[in-house]
Order: sequence, then C-alpha cells, then structure tokens
Amino acid sequence: MSTTDLTSTVTADDFKFAFRHHPAGIAVVTADDGNGPVAMTVSSLSSVGIAPPTLMFSASPISSATPTIRHAKTLVVHMLTADQVGLAKLASTSGVDRFGSDVNWGRLPTGEPYYPEASEWLRGRIISRLDINGSTLVVVEALEAKPREDVEHDDRQPLVYHNRTWHALGEGSRLDV
Amino acid sequence: MSTTDLTSTVTADDFKFAFRHHPAGIAVVTADDGNGPVAMTVSSLSSVGIAPPTLMFSASPISSATPTIRHAKTLVVHMLTADQVGLAKLASTSGVDRFGSDVNWGRLPTGEPYYPEASEWLRGRIISRLDINGSTLVVVEALEAKPREDVEHDDRQPLVYHNRTWHALGEGSRLDV
Repeated sequence: MSTTDLTSTVTADDFKFAFRHHPAGIAVVTADDGNGPVAMTVSSLSSVGIAPPTLMFSASPISSATPTIRHAKTLVVHMLTADQVGLAKLASTSGVDRFGSDVNWGRLPTGEPYYPEASEWLRGRIISRLDINGSTLVVVEALEAKPREDVEHDDRQPLVYHNRTWHALGEGSRLDV
Repeated sequence: MSTTDLTSTVTADDFKFAFRHHPAGIAVVTADDGNGPVAMTVSSLSSVGIAPPTLMFSASPISSATPTIRHAKTLVVHMLTADQVGLAKLASTSGVDRFGSDVNWGRLPTGEPYYPEASEWLRGRIISRLDINGSTLVVVEALEAKPREDVEHDDRQPLVYHNRTWHALGEGSRLDV
C-alpha cells in the first residue's frame, strides 16, 4: 500500500451529493429534561449491539430539541411507518407545536413524552454523549419496548427518507434476489 | 415529570424486533492496514456533519474486517444502488474472497482498496474509534469523493435493507406527500 494521502479535496457539496444517494429509515426522538417535552426527527438511528441492547443517533446542533436531549437522562425513540409520515414532518418542521392539543401524544408511566401511534418505540437511558465535529452523538441503552400486543402485523410499510423525498417499503420495492 | 425508572424490561428479542422494522441504506467499507484488503457491509452509515464533512458507522465485533478497520488510517465508504446488491452480499457473506480475481476491485492512487462499480464512494481518514458495548463506532472525516463525471444520473435506485430483505427505492415506493 502506498503512502496514505491525508489531503482533503472533498467539498461540502460533494459530501452532500454523496449522502443524497444514501437512504435512511426515520425515527422520532422525544425527551423531557424537566423543562417541557421536545421532539426531533432523525435519519441516523442505528442499532449498535444487543448485549446490552444499545442504539445511537446523532443530534444536529441546529435542532431546537438538541439542548434538552443533551440534558435528559432518558428518552424515547420511535420507529415510523409510511402512514406516520405526518409525525416525521411534525418533528422536523421549525416553528410548529410538536405537543399541541391537536397532536396525539402522551406520557409513559415513567414520565417521558411519546407518540402512541408510532409503530414501534424503545425507551432508553442515555449512556454517552459524544461531541463530534459540532454534532452530538447520543448512545442509548434500551430499557423498555412498546408492548408487542400494541404492535400491528408485519405488513406495515417502513418509512424511508431519500434525496428530499419520502418512500414506503413494500412488495413494490422488494428486490427478488 | 415523575421519577425516571432505569430498570430494564427489554429483551434482546424485543430489541431485534423493533429494529427489524427500521430500514437502512447500505454501504460497503473497504480498508487495508498493510496486511491485505478487507471489506464489510454496514447498515449503520450516517452523516454527522459537513464542516468538516464527517460520517460514522459501527463495526460489529463478529465481522472479520473489523480488526483491520480498527487499525487502518484511512478507508473507503461505498454507497450502493439496487443493481449493486451483489456487492452488498459479497461483503456480508462469510468465507468468500471479497477481492478475488473474479471481483471488480482496484486500488485508489492513495492505496486503499475499492470497488469502482459503486455509485458513490467517499475516501476518508479515521478520526475516532469508540468502543460502545462491544461494537466499534468509527468516525471518519471525508477527504475525497468519487469524481462526479463517473457518477451516473439521478435515476439510480438506492439499495435499502429491511427485515432480511433487499429493496430498491424508486417511483414505485415514493410517497406523494
């Protein structure tokens, strides 16, 4: 292997162009640090490991929810299906009340705000917050899952975000390989 | 907000069930620490920030490529479209030669192994490796992108993995919202 070149030639535009072609599942994160509920839509959720069950996502410095998520001890991560695209938009649009009287939200017995309509949710405790070039990487150990009896069947169509458009996975998108 | 309950009731099965409903874009990561090329398929790639352009993914302890990725200084992250599902399977199947004579791979001028057919790739340097409950979170600052003139048009269908099936995003999956 030749000498590694550490010179950067990539522009912000090149980087955004590359990631515009990388789709992502969508989740909404809710929390309350004692100063009221917040919600944010994230496209960076992933599972890190199962023993113990651990997940991570990154919180953008420009999201109004980030300060609360940085201070909260626990939070709820909601996995969304296509029929919940309204929730994804609610939690990613500035200036709207994400917990107004017209929004279907509640509190778990443990206190965290959550959206009961989400197909799945996991409640967890934040075990690490890492500052990475301005964003906050949040690492969470899951404590509780949405009760299985509340989960609908597997014909749900997961929501995907890609290049500023929303997609639903289903039989029509399935590759026969 | 009531007292936060930090007792865990979630099982590994609950956690896997929840994440089975979380789709992901697919990337293949290649590297060489001086002991030969390795490749791994990841479903945890996300963009962390653009100034400087930063991405992250997690490397499973059970992947044969993880030790090399832990030692390498630089690597290449390939974003895949549906017609490259073979590459995703190549880099996620144990016991196959990911750099055999029948595989279309090469070396960048800077030395890293890569797959030229990938729709997009970003070469970068590893700026942080974090151990999180057994997995390695790899944080990368992008240095170089696949030349734009080599990138095909925007009618490419990104590859998505969901609940053990492969999907292609396209007009058929698009939500009209």
